[in-house]
Amino acid sequence: MDAAQEARNMEAFRQAVVNTLERRLFYIPSFKIYRGVAGLYDYGPPGCAVKSNVLAFWRQHFVLEENMLEVDCPCVTPEVVLKASGHVDKFTDLMVKDEKTGTCYRADHLLKDYCKEKLEKEPNLSAEKTEELRHVLATLDDLSALELGAKIKGYGITAPDTKNAVSDPYPFNLMFQTSIGPSGVSPGYMRPETAQGIFVNFKDLYYYNGNKLPFAAAQIGQAFRNEISPRQGLLRVREFTLAEIEHFVDPEDKSHPKFSEVAKLEFLMFPREDQVSGRTARRIPIGEAVSQGIVNNQTLGYFIGRVYLFLTQLGIDKDRLRFRQHLANEMAHYAADCWDAEIECSYGWIECVGIADRSAYDLRAHTDKSGVDLVAHEKFPEPREVEKLIIVPAKKELGLAFKGGQKMVVEALEAMDEKEAMEMKQTLESKGEAEFRVCTLDKVVTIKSTMVSISKKNIKEHQRVFTPSVIEPSFGIGRIIYCLYEHSFYTRSSRDGDEQMNVFRFPPLIAPIKCTVFPLVQNQQYEDVAKDIAKSLTATGISYKIDITGTSIGKRYARTDELGVPFAVTVDSTSSVTVRERDSKQQIRVNVDEVASVIKEVTDGVSTWADVLWKYPTHSS
Amino acid sequence: MDAAQEARNMEAFRQAVVNTLERRLFYIPSFKIYRGVAGLYDYGPPGCAVKSNVLAFWRQHFVLEENMLEVDCPCVTPEVVLKASGHVDKFTDLMVKDEKTGTCYRADHLLKDYCKEKLEKEPNLSAEKTEELRHVLATLDDLSALELGAKIKGYGITAPDTKNAVSDPYPFNLMFQTSIGPSGVSPGYMRPETAQGIFVNFKDLYYYNGNKLPFAAAQIGQAFRNEISPRQGLLRVREFTLAEIEHFVDPEDKSHPKFSEVAKLEFLMFPREDQVSGRTARRIPIGEAVSQGIVNNQTLGYFIGRVYLFLTQLGIDKDRLRFRQHLANEMAHYAADCWDAEIECSYGWIECVGIADRSAYDLRAHTDKSGVDLVAHEKFPEPREVEKLIIVPAKKELGLAFKGGQKMVVEALEAMDEKEAMEMKQTLESKGEAEFRVCTLDKVVTIKSTMVSISKKNIKEHQRVFTPSVIEPSFGIGRIIYCLYEHSFYTRSSRDGDEQMNVFRFPPLIAPIKCTVFPLVQNQQYEDVAKDIAKSLTATGISYKIDITGTSIGKRYARTDELGVPFAVTVDSTSSVTVRERDSKQQIRVNVDEVASVIKEVTDGVSTWADVLWKYPTHSS
Repeated sequence: MDAAQEARNMEAFRQAVVNTLERRLFYIPSFKIYRGVAGLYDYGPPGCAVKSNVLAFWRQHFVLEENMLEVDCPCVTPEVVLKASGHVDKFTDLMVKDEKTGTCYRADHLLKDYCKEKLEKEPNLSAEKTEELRHVLATLDDLSALELGAKIKGYGITAPDTKNAVSDPYPFNLMFQTSIGPSGVSPGYMRPETAQGIFVNFKDLYYYNGNKLPFAAAQIGQAFRNEISPRQGLLRVREFTLAEIEHFVDPEDKSHPKFSEVAKLEFLMFPREDQVSGRTARRIPIGEAVSQGIVNNQTLGYFIGRVYLFLTQLGIDKDRLRFRQHLANEMAHYAADCWDAEIECSYGWIECVGIADRSAYDLRAHTDKSGVDLVAHEKFPEPREVEKLIIVPAKKELGLAFKGGQKMVVEALEAMDEKEAMEMKQTLESKGEAEFRVCTLDKVVTIKSTMVSISKKNIKEHQRVFTPSVIEPSFGIGRIIYCLYEHSFYTRSSRDGDEQMNVFRFPPLIAPIKCTVFPLVQNQQYEDVAKDIAKSLTATGISYKIDITGTSIGKRYARTDELGVPFAVTVDSTSSVTVRERDSKQQIRVNVDEVASVIKEVTDGVSTWADVLWKYPTHSS
Repeated sequence: MDAAQEARNMEAFRQAVVNTLERRLFYIPSFKIYRGVAGLYDYGPPGCAVKSNVLAFWRQHFVLEENMLEVDCPCVTPEVVLKASGHVDKFTDLMVKDEKTGTCYRADHLLKDYCKEKLEKEPNLSAEKTEELRHVLATLDDLSALELGAKIKGYGITAPDTKNAVSDPYPFNLMFQTSIGPSGVSPGYMRPETAQGIFVNFKDLYYYNGNKLPFAAAQIGQAFRNEISPRQGLLRVREFTLAEIEHFVDPEDKSHPKFSEVAKLEFLMFPREDQVSGRTARRIPIGEAVSQGIVNNQTLGYFIGRVYLFLTQLGIDKDRLRFRQHLANEMAHYAADCWDAEIECSYGWIECVGIADRSAYDLRAHTDKSGVDLVAHEKFPEPREVEKLIIVPAKKELGLAFKGGQKMVVEALEAMDEKEAMEMKQTLESKGEAEFRVCTLDKVVTIKSTMVSISKKNIKEHQRVFTPSVIEPSFGIGRIIYCLYEHSFYTRSSRDGDEQMNVFRFPPLIAPIKCTVFPLVQNQQYEDVAKDIAKSLTATGISYKIDITGTSIGKRYARTDELGVPFAVTVDSTSSVTVRERDSKQQIRVNVDEVASVIKEVTDGVSTWADVLWKYPTHSS
């Protein structure tokens, strides 16, 4: 099959999934009666149930299992917080404007579309040109505004809707801006991630945890991203649910006590070196990946393993899931290591979970901006003797010499690291003065030996004070759910072979509704039994749907298969009923008063369908 | 006890609760390290757990029990939706500005504070003046901008911080505004309620429900309100979680099939008439309230009953909960009836749930604005003969007579109701012409008998098309939780009587952590047992906290009581352990391998503590 055919098949498959999802209200374009808003979607009833099941499982798998501290912070965030985090300055995409109509486009999208179209539709492209366009596509994310602008101009790319010329690319901040309070003097933003709410609370959470490391905090909540022009349907939206974990750890000890529990797990990994050298992802046991140094540390490795378990238990196909390491140019300068859980769907490999060792970056940034020390303490069992650098600027001398600049010089002297300070000490001792660059004054000054005393002293330390590292697994819940839809969807022939029927093979844990109850025929007795069963299902906490329409049983099965309901209870007598499993279509007979507990067993995962098949008489339909 | 003393006691009680809540991180002022933002709070770990338990119970009690259609819509909302709902024009508070500094105040707050202070602090106030100020306080919510301004000027009220003069009151819209997309031409708001997301989806949801009424949709989510100057701590905040139900019903049949299940419930109700005539709330069975017409209809009554059950099962004191009917001036003009569940706390009686019959208002508003019919259909079993009014304006004649005004006249004629039309028909027949007021032209025109034909015709109708009424229970989750904190809090003496210990008597369902596990003394054997128990608790889905500090058992109990943890498991042997209940302090002995299932039983409500007390040997501490 050639690439074009494969792309068409993918497109057809996606259309089938998306049509089913939209027709059965898994999702709805938001504000549809007003023609909608690009990048905003509602979860309709089954979608909302799937989402709430995914989140409940996330809480069980991460928060409860690891005793994490869950918090819940507002979406509205004052500017100062996002200034410290870097979002005000750097959370941008490059944009161009149609010079006549003012319509905005993402600059990299225009260039990408141009290259792709050339490559696909011009069969007589020279080898040289082909190579060039491919190189542009591969390095798209690395281009600066100037480089992007030059390429757009160079290729003569115009606005796709009007063919008008476009402006030079310039950064557009992707945060939704607002104003807090009535005076208009307190700018705020809708948070672009939930993580900052955790970082600013580090001090309280550390205290809550008994001043002990490591510990993890978690948050589930809405995040916002004012996309320039949303694409890729449910994958790139303007408002989405994130579930984020910030695991705080001593930078000198990133081992994990439970690492052995995941060490033997083996799954597709795609280390940096393999990507660079053009290899494909390969199965590596996570224990090996850590011991070989492919993954930076045990804690990072532990979370990669736990994420693998989480996603596959949801129903993500393990053969279409890989962990890809960030290339050097993708990774933030402060990050120690970073891996994305990527899931393959009809749009390609999609980043759904990021698992990053962000080192001490975030806590330091908020310490600097707020003046509140976000640090941890390690008390020594015995005080330790350590050599400490002592820098004492002579403020009076410095004041006489530098007047208004005195404060800057004092601060710069105090900020010297050990190497710098000892060099200055030597110079001062040998020459009596030293040249010294003061960044904040942007000049070089002369320091005399009377102006500062530099020495080393042995002191007893009772504790070590340090900024913890943070390891952050961050889950895009909507993307995971969309990929899950694609991985769960299949079609099969109806009994008479005339029709293709849609099925979602959701695991019971995730299925929006756990079972359907229908009387075989419309009669009062059967309906009463159906209602009794419904009552006991409610009492057991099992979601269900009653279908008392007179439609044929086959049609009713098809309807419920298309919603991914794992079990159907058909009331065909007043004492016992038929329970049918969705994928195998196998049927068993169960007494009316046992139905709720059997369904509970198989949906809670206490028993598998295979277990109950043994216990109850099977039934041929 | 006089009123002032009572107020001081209330204040002291509130301080004790709030101090405990803040110290144990039930909540944290958001962005504290940056000095916070008024009206924004985080839920810390125990608060977050309480919230998520309350929401899980809400889902079970309402969504699952009533088979509601839950949806999940974005917070970012385009202007057109909130224009239709009336929020763009009317979701305002009156504000005044300090004329020199520009600081903003809520106009009614300034007047309220002034009156209260006069009444409290000026003992020699004349009877007349006292009466006047009391009247102002009682009618505060009814004052227009002009009236409020006149009172503020009249009393010489100035800005409280500076004593500067203040501006005239003017409306300030309480929605957080933002802009959707990069072009700046699509204004949007952060939703002030979740309800609109449901209304705009009515058509799809009605279809999903098999085109049948009644049905209910529900949504849990964040809502936003940019308060002018937030007060009352956790009760009036700028971002909060709402849980809303929109129950769609045929306006001609508001009976409820399950009403009999709540009819006998009896609780404090405060009908409009009792408020006006100065009586206090009284206990009325909800069945009686509906049959006597105090509550407008069964469906409204059913939800009032269900809300009562929900709140009391959470732990709200039934004697400090009342249902207060809106007075005529409080109620929106379109509402058929409206009741607030009010909970008494240290701030007074606080509206926590609103239960309103909003008639067809919202669906009609969106039908008008969007042009999409949000209606229901009732198919008749047999076609019905109905008499129908037929108005046919003679457009040509009208065009000649009214030129450019023709369209308005045609529309006005077509819009006549039956009474108007039949009167005109009579006049036209007797006099040959009739005076007719056209609102849209703002004038009276003369209609001649040649200009319109009015008749009645019998036609066969196959269905009735109508806009459903909506009954809306809307829950302020944060307010309910705060009141629950106050109702659950008490203090008791420590064993030695030296200290007052704090306890939250949360029911197990709601408690943030279900049990604590602690080894009696620090030794490896006990710690291993504690870890085994922890593992089995995790597997059962029970949240717990291990406390292996060497602190005295009494102190550890006190710590856990203050978090409202209902059960404590003390490991004092390797075969069996002590389980202690928080409020009674009773203790039983349970085998290590049974602990998890016993705790599960009592937290899930399968058994009560009294049940297990019978089954297991008690233990004197």
